[in-house]
Amino acid sequence: MKKLAVGIDIGGTNTKYGIADREGNVYYNSRISTTGHKDFETYFDFLCSEIKKALESLTFQYELVGLGVGAPNGNFYTGTIENAPNLPWKVKIPLSKLLYEKFNVRSIVTNDANAAAIGEMVYGGAKGMRDFIVITLGTGLGSGIVANGELINGHDGYAGELGHVNVKVNGRLCGCGKRGCLETYVSATGINRTVFKLLADELAPSSLRGISFNDLSTKMISDAAAKEDKIAIKAFEYTGKILGRKLADTIVHTSPEAIFIFGGLANARELIFEPTIRHMEANLMSFYQNKVKILPSKLGDETAPILGASSLIWNDLQEK
Amino acid sequence: MKKLAVGIDIGGTNTKYGIADREGNVYYNSRISTTGHKDFETYFDFLCSEIKKALESLTFQYELVGLGVGAPNGNFYTGTIENAPNLPWKVKIPLSKLLYEKFNVRSIVTNDANAAAIGEMVYGGAKGMRDFIVITLGTGLGSGIVANGELINGHDGYAGELGHVNVKVNGRLCGCGKRGCLETYVSATGINRTVFKLLADELAPSSLRGISFNDLSTKMISDAAAKEDKIAIKAFEYTGKILGRKLADTIVHTSPEAIFIFGGLANARELIFEPTIRHMEANLMSFYQNKVKILPSKLGDETAPILGASSLIWNDLQEK
Repeated sequence: MKKLAVGIDIGGTNTKYGIADREGNVYYNSRISTTGHKDFETYFDFLCSEIKKALESLTFQYELVGLGVGAPNGNFYTGTIENAPNLPWKVKIPLSKLLYEKFNVRSIVTNDANAAAIGEMVYGGAKGMRDFIVITLGTGLGSGIVANGELINGHDGYAGELGHVNVKVNGRLCGCGKRGCLETYVSATGINRTVFKLLADELAPSSLRGISFNDLSTKMISDAAAKEDKIAIKAFEYTGKILGRKLADTIVHTSPEAIFIFGGLANARELIFEPTIRHMEANLMSFYQNKVKILPSKLGDETAPILGASSLIWNDLQEK
Repeated sequence: MKKLAVGIDIGGTNTKYGIADREGNVYYNSRISTTGHKDFETYFDFLCSEIKKALESLTFQYELVGLGVGAPNGNFYTGTIENAPNLPWKVKIPLSKLLYEKFNVRSIVTNDANAAAIGEMVYGGAKGMRDFIVITLGTGLGSGIVANGELINGHDGYAGELGHVNVKVNGRLCGCGKRGCLETYVSATGINRTVFKLLADELAPSSLRGISFNDLSTKMISDAAAKEDKIAIKAFEYTGKILGRKLADTIVHTSPEAIFIFGGLANARELIFEPTIRHMEANLMSFYQNKVKILPSKLGDETAPILGASSLIWNDLQEK
């Protein structure tokens, strides 16, 4: 009988969910809103009933082997979500336990970037790699670190929060309450902040001068850069400089074979990859230089969250 | 029959070697000069003959199970030493292979800080811990990172070079050729540089004003600080600030249970621990705060290099 896993990706705006097999075939792929529910219970009941409907819609015999969840501040050890700045529920949610009660199969919770890293290892460009890092660039910056073939969860399940390494003493204010965190410079929001800083500091004409902070998107900055807009080009150069320097610091920690970049900002491709690689290499000691591959994720944008989350189950089965 | 391992710690000045059992009893402990030999072959032949003499001096029956070596730029995967800035031999040395040819038992090479980390896990304060970091403060700053109960060697064997994360853009020149590396601020040499910077910038009287750069030692700075010398106190505060901030960055990578500090500068105890912990905590996100223990190494200074290096063998036996 076909073995299937459910993947759930809980984001600040949407919750994506779907059904996949070990080979990465996705049999169902949909989403509900994360916000706009009365409370967590209402949201959770609705999500579970939608997943059950999706499973019932399958027209072949299958065995459900587990549910994998990627969520901000998802904790692998405790199976909980706690204190996630971008989620509407401020209580500690025992998500793994609640899912088990509904579906009676194993469920594994981890943070969204860790799920992306396992997804890259199971289905993507990191197949066969034992030491690599995945950086996810969305509203914030997430990361998942794999060393010796295993995800690093750390002592309390919160390893891999590279969005919060310090880039600048007394730098930009971060949602976490500190100043100067990497994600305040390198993320969709980070590059917007850089564009607005440049619009303030420089006099160059720019198509971006007509757009509000709230309306500005990474795609608009990419499009402007493609048309030689000086502010947009400078913004990518600066973002790549900050990211490249910090990747050089990260490389001395775990000496990875490759670093995969995933998410909206990564879609700008050479605009972000070229300065990132250039500044990373310039900041590496000689014996690290020209060794570490910086690669775009091989998971497609649409199915990646589902595959990443469901891969937690296949990875867990394999380890046992 | 008693199983024994030889531990060898190759430093820029001395090579320490000794014989230990699995329980950490040291049966022999001596040293030869690393420098002052005609070439590597002369040095190596002398070292091996001294080790053989030491083994022959044992008055009980034993089985030699292996030789472990900690050395700057020692590479676990290839068993070589290569390009070590502080060693006199500039060629690539196949040390593991050469030792096997002399002793006909397994030999394992790694860098000195990685050996210290395994030593802490096998014999010291990290017994039973699965996620921890050892920072060695000597002439430079070395580090060994353990996650999921295993040492992180990385893709090419050069993981854990925290001495070379960047602290300051265009900061102090480092032996590696880059500027602003952590070890140019946090190490025996680093705090000397800080004292001299402070002597230049400040007007406070200080007993350290009578001492040359070459003569200045960490012990002198500690002694001065104990006598309320303002320059010495400021130097420890600054060193702790830089180290604490960087430890906060390292914690978001692997979320360790504890960080052990080992080596000369660590002997200054509260003078270095107090500001390090204070600045580390101030730079951590709330959910990491007051969790990560900063501890002095539990390995004694004298036998630690031998135990660290020989522990590579016990750790290897256990994994098989």
